[in-house]
Amino acid sequence: MNRNTGILVLGHGSTRPHNKEIVESVAKMIADRKDVIVRTAFMNVNEPSIKDGLASFSGTGVETIVALPIFLAHGVHTLEDIPGELNLDEDNKATIDVDGKTAEIVYAEPLGIDPCIAELAYRRAEEALSR
Amino acid sequence: MNRNTGILVLGHGSTRPHNKEIVESVAKMIADRKDVIVRTAFMNVNEPSIKDGLASFSGTGVETIVALPIFLAHGVHTLEDIPGELNLDEDNKATIDVDGKTAEIVYAEPLGIDPCIAELAYRRAEEALSR
Repeated sequence: MNRNTGILVLGHGSTRPHNKEIVESVAKMIADRKDVIVRTAFMNVNEPSIKDGLASFSGTGVETIVALPIFLAHGVHTLEDIPGELNLDEDNKATIDVDGKTAEIVYAEPLGIDPCIAELAYRRAEEALSR
Repeated sequence: MNRNTGILVLGHGSTRPHNKEIVESVAKMIADRKDVIVRTAFMNVNEPSIKDGLASFSGTGVETIVALPIFLAHGVHTLEDIPGELNLDEDNKATIDVDGKTAEIVYAEPLGIDPCIAELAYRRAEEALSR
């Protein structure tokens, strides 16, 4: 990836602060380590909305935006609600206007099954026992 | 941890199969790699329920059960719904009867902020671009 690429880090949103915190932390960790334009957006409750998150790439010159759902697994939110907000076609792609040029939106998979999830979960179990 | 300890891997539950798949994959990865008794349970929709998941430690001889929520972040589910189902006290602990002996339930934190979440998310973004 490079500065022609944007990542829209997408969260569920919550009345509690924790979902927003983790989404913003993921966005910050990626922005700090990778040469890519990063923005955040939330499906519910929190700001910016998905529409406003897409609009926040204005002025960046990105040609591609990866919509990256920070969800553990697919469900109704990632399979219906968010694709609807992004106006994705059947190939999970869309286009939007960024500064008068057409940018492509591609939709990433949620975190999904990975050993790092099990390792982190086990660490949380160990921490609970040591409290 | 050892065979006196159980981990109840807790999922949100979903009408779609993916949440159950990730919860069961986490449970299997922990069971395969660690010397600990592992069971699963779901807050909604999927089986076993949290009550049935706790009951499934019958016959294992566990003295401690770590209730391990496979949620990204705290929210109403992890702060109210699941503690209610587990009958946790103000210290996030409870006791239940397992085979006529008292076992302690301790409640772990959700996955939360960790670099591995950002690294996995970034990998999903890269995969989306290479499709």
